[in-house]
Amino acid sequence: MQHNAGDSASSMNEQPIGVFDSGIGGLSVVTHILKLLPRENIIYFGDTARVPYGSRSNEIVQTYAVEDAAFLTSKNVKAMVIACNTVSAVGLEKVRAAFSVPVIGVIIPGAQAAARTTKNKKVGVIGTIATIASQSYANAIRLIDPAIEVTSQPCPLFVPLAEEGWTTHKASQLIAEEYLEPLKDAKVDTLVLGCTHYPLLHDIIHKTMGAGVTLVNPGEETVRWTKDFLAQHNLLNKSGQPPRHSFYVSDLPQKFLEVGERFLGMKLENVEKIDI
Amino acid sequence: MQHNAGDSASSMNEQPIGVFDSGIGGLSVVTHILKLLPRENIIYFGDTARVPYGSRSNEIVQTYAVEDAAFLTSKNVKAMVIACNTVSAVGLEKVRAAFSVPVIGVIIPGAQAAARTTKNKKVGVIGTIATIASQSYANAIRLIDPAIEVTSQPCPLFVPLAEEGWTTHKASQLIAEEYLEPLKDAKVDTLVLGCTHYPLLHDIIHKTMGAGVTLVNPGEETVRWTKDFLAQHNLLNKSGQPPRHSFYVSDLPQKFLEVGERFLGMKLENVEKIDI
Repeated sequence: MQHNAGDSASSMNEQPIGVFDSGIGGLSVVTHILKLLPRENIIYFGDTARVPYGSRSNEIVQTYAVEDAAFLTSKNVKAMVIACNTVSAVGLEKVRAAFSVPVIGVIIPGAQAAARTTKNKKVGVIGTIATIASQSYANAIRLIDPAIEVTSQPCPLFVPLAEEGWTTHKASQLIAEEYLEPLKDAKVDTLVLGCTHYPLLHDIIHKTMGAGVTLVNPGEETVRWTKDFLAQHNLLNKSGQPPRHSFYVSDLPQKFLEVGERFLGMKLENVEKIDI
Repeated sequence: MQHNAGDSASSMNEQPIGVFDSGIGGLSVVTHILKLLPRENIIYFGDTARVPYGSRSNEIVQTYAVEDAAFLTSKNVKAMVIACNTVSAVGLEKVRAAFSVPVIGVIIPGAQAAARTTKNKKVGVIGTIATIASQSYANAIRLIDPAIEVTSQPCPLFVPLAEEGWTTHKASQLIAEEYLEPLKDAKVDTLVLGCTHYPLLHDIIHKTMGAGVTLVNPGEETVRWTKDFLAQHNLLNKSGQPPRHSFYVSDLPQKFLEVGERFLGMKLENVEKIDI
């Protein structure tokens, strides 16, 4: 872990947690940090100039992810959370190889929660084209319990629907029915929402899948995992100072401010544009 | 116009037409070049690593547009067509200022066709958030004929629907009905399809607007404009050689090859990835 020679253990605890995402969606992970780790300082970076990542090649996603992470390490973070499922699926190892700071992705926490939740050993996974093509969730779930049958489905229209705020529209309902049909046919009892935008469509997905299906939010699970990690490594911030939350984006902040409040559930402040 | 000292007039005529777009959609403009200017060599660049442009700030779109155009000028094009409506709306002047090659955007040709077509002096314009916010079409149409009333509407879900190929889906119909309602209420008799993706949704848009509304495709109009421009400047390729068509993209070509055939209506070849 990088820190200056003069850092004491306590000042290191006060270093921020870094969170990055392809854009706005990672704010849904920040909401859980605010709940579960309310004392922590947070630096968030959303790559809004190059979003979305989920329809791009693994090669480009990896290149962008390493650039995003470089910005966070320049801010001296004590740990880094990759909020973006696509980056966690195809770029986690590249980021880990490039930096010495601990890096936590959303796939393993999400897969563990799914394996723990399912009773009939049938799990569904939805996500971007890149996340589903990587089979990262399916492989992780089968590693935890080879008896689990995983059915995966890319849902590319869910991101623009969530960003448009069409969370209860009849068209969104029709699109959900079409995308989720293979998962209903497979009789999954657990569904991983493998993209930061999908929790915004929770109600439509829940209604379409039926009350017997439990929805797993990997972002929430990842924040629990992060809390355990920081506790185990004696890295929790115990300073008692009011936490600082700083947000950086690569395009002008206007849309981030507008749409971001839907994800964060509160007003966004301290948003700054950087060049990446 | 840039050319080497040794270039004869005839070799300049054989230089390619450059076309750039934020991604795949500009191929719908290429189809019209193939029809109207079948002897011309074409160099196409699609910025697939950073698509879409339509939800980004003007500042970022301008930066990306100048980078895209720099690539085409490095290929020694005799003229440049900006296929992307968003770039034409907010970045045309920046591109013109940066390069000496003639640059043709889609707004003026589209606006002229709309002004020529309308009988009741009520024109609708649909496009990306950035294109509509710029009011470029509305301003251009009113400049041509101040008596024309322009009603504009951003349709951000149309691009992902077209890329998913959901051109006849019931959900697309519902989305079209919602987006187009203000244009029907305004009783427009002419509708500008102000985004390269929208011609793929022609049938649903036509059905929603009704048979009395004429749809204008600015890409097609722009190619007519380009043909006139080249003829007036004695720049048409008269060599009689089989034309060369080269395609460049900034992400791996796989998706471009798959989705691109829907736009081009034929098999794509000679696609190469470059770093931008």
